[in-house]
Amino acid sequence: LGWFGMQTVTLIPGDGIGPEISSAVMKIFEAAKAPIRWEERNVTAIKGPGGRWMIPPDAKESMDRNKIGLKGPLKTPIAAGHPSMNLLLRKTFDLYANVRPCISIEGYKTPYTNVDLVTIRENTEGEYSGIEHVIVEGVVQSIKLITEDASRRIAEYAFEYARNNQRSSVTAVHKANIMRMSDGLFLRKCREVAEGYKDIKFTEMYLDTVCLNMVQDPTQFDVLVMPNLYGDILSDLCAGLIGGLGVTPSGNIGANGVAIFESVHGTAPDIAGLDMANPTALLLSAVMMLRHMGLHDYGNKIQTACFDTIRDKKVLTKDLGGNSKCSEFTADICRRIQDLD
Amino acid sequence: LGWFGMQTVTLIPGDGIGPEISSAVMKIFEAAKAPIRWEERNVTAIKGPGGRWMIPPDAKESMDRNKIGLKGPLKTPIAAGHPSMNLLLRKTFDLYANVRPCISIEGYKTPYTNVDLVTIRENTEGEYSGIEHVIVEGVVQSIKLITEDASRRIAEYAFEYARNNQRSSVTAVHKANIMRMSDGLFLRKCREVAEGYKDIKFTEMYLDTVCLNMVQDPTQFDVLVMPNLYGDILSDLCAGLIGGLGVTPSGNIGANGVAIFESVHGTAPDIAGLDMANPTALLLSAVMMLRHMGLHDYGNKIQTACFDTIRDKKVLTKDLGGNSKCSEFTADICRRIQDLD
Ligand SMILES: CC(C)[C@H](C(=O)O)[C@@H](O)C(=O)O
Ligand SMILES: CC(C)[C@H](C(=O)O)[C@@H](O)C(=O)O
Repeated sequence: LGWFGMQTVTLIPGDGIGPEISSAVMKIFEAAKAPIRWEERNVTAIKGPGGRWMIPPDAKESMDRNKIGLKGPLKTPIAAGHPSMNLLLRKTFDLYANVRPCISIEGYKTPYTNVDLVTIRENTEGEYSGIEHVIVEGVVQSIKLITEDASRRIAEYAFEYARNNQRSSVTAVHKANIMRMSDGLFLRKCREVAEGYKDIKFTEMYLDTVCLNMVQDPTQFDVLVMPNLYGDILSDLCAGLIGGLGVTPSGNIGANGVAIFESVHGTAPDIAGLDMANPTALLLSAVMMLRHMGLHDYGNKIQTACFDTIRDKKVLTKDLGGNSKCSEFTADICRRIQDLD
Repeated sequence: LGWFGMQTVTLIPGDGIGPEISSAVMKIFEAAKAPIRWEERNVTAIKGPGGRWMIPPDAKESMDRNKIGLKGPLKTPIAAGHPSMNLLLRKTFDLYANVRPCISIEGYKTPYTNVDLVTIRENTEGEYSGIEHVIVEGVVQSIKLITEDASRRIAEYAFEYARNNQRSSVTAVHKANIMRMSDGLFLRKCREVAEGYKDIKFTEMYLDTVCLNMVQDPTQFDVLVMPNLYGDILSDLCAGLIGGLGVTPSGNIGANGVAIFESVHGTAPDIAGLDMANPTALLLSAVMMLRHMGLHDYGNKIQTACFDTIRDKKVLTKDLGGNSKCSEFTADICRRIQDLD
């Protein structure tokens, strides 16, 4: 294990169970002696000049400086026109790739075994353009925006990811039979980029066909790349195959190393503060973060301990089928990490 | 059993395995003495005046007269600008509701049991509007069109369907958190229509959440109603849960009783003519057709015989896990129908 200086990461604990699961992750990182210093920032949207929603300047400044963030769940206030905080963060830092590895967790039973795939979602445009009009009373159009640049960028990200993570195939997911121009452009860029990666197998598949095949046999898939909305859908579907959002990590990646890793489950206000939350999704997101920073050994150690605790079934939070508290689950992972040393 | 005069139905056998599975259905209908006379029509798209694609006039005329059609799979020629034949048919007859019951088939093993839900898909607009533009080089927009009329019509269809089929809940599936105006309009119409059906429980759910919950526990769902593309995705996903498109029936419903029932699997050219195809999806679609025509007893009899054959596992086509030919599978169903009498 090489020596790394401490690196500072912006920590956005979030709302509801966010603070509890964040402190669980911090304890586990401490037990693993991971060389991370946390800089905590609260993120609630504020109205900036001209009435535009923005994240607080001190959170923005921290992220700009540290480049890397870890965030718990954020609630979106139900004010008219209020954007989703998740979307606002993705937009603010141009986090163009949403990456979700879905890997079956041994010992946590679902109808599927040996799932091992990654969804890579274009995170900035498509159906999320926010452009909508009333044409005449009772007739509305929403605009899906697909650009050459964003399509090429996400395709390149997917192939680089595949190559760097010893994955053998990339599937482009689309409906270019229906949206011939927009999904057609996306698909064309994927094909072009594929030309430069002869070591990675490239296939194309309709979204509906992917969904059908996915629930019949998810083991046939490896890396999947797709426009924004399809990624929203497919990443949740795949999370369902391995046990849900409580165990699925997520990363939002931008240019020049900028990235925010996050658990994508809700804030669970009903159990907030009761020491009942499951920190696994945030912890595995933090493991993705460590790997993104080149700290693979720390990431592997933490992941092994977490999976051992789950496989062992003795100390599990309620949602995982056990009776233990968040703090007990956390302590069990910490103990295993110390044993691994 | 009341007496019904013979009714004529337009039969579009389709391409590939279409003719084989169509003749299987005809044999089974004969064994059941179903009071249906078939009027066969070929459907290949032709170019009409002004270069617009249209279905052949004799097929159109037959459907206009009979109002009800049964169709096998149709291949879509790979000519530039050629529309999907399925879409062209839906459009030609304004078949605004796509209905797919997904019900677990006893004896046909999948990771799920007791699935019993129906997806109801708006079939005429949304992402299938076909309106797309290049804004500037490398920037494309596709327009999703949602109208008040089509949204109300499909919501009304869903609630009527629920009531007439002893179903207790309708879930509207949407992404109104992202497409606030278009999906917002769709959702508003669903809410309004729900007001008139106090006997049916109404819920709303995000598409991504539905997908996640669906693969975790599909038994929580009943009737689902949604815009076009979401229905394309979700109906295939749900078909996957019960065994795929080879066993899933489908109906496209228009106004004034007009309807086309169809198997939604492909033409399987590799096994066409080899007496290996599985007629189940087309047969169950034909059963939906009988019910649509008020011929419930005939429908139930045929469905019972088909499910008995599958449950019995002795005479199954290859895709169902057996070694029997299409003709043997068909004969087994016919024999059971005769035994039921
Ligand atoms: C919170 C919501 C706006 C978001 C989305 O639709 O993208 C969520 O579902 C996700 O997948 O991160
Ligand atoms: C054939 C294709 C155009 C069609 C669609 O996308 O609607 C199909 O997938 C379906 O579900 O009937």
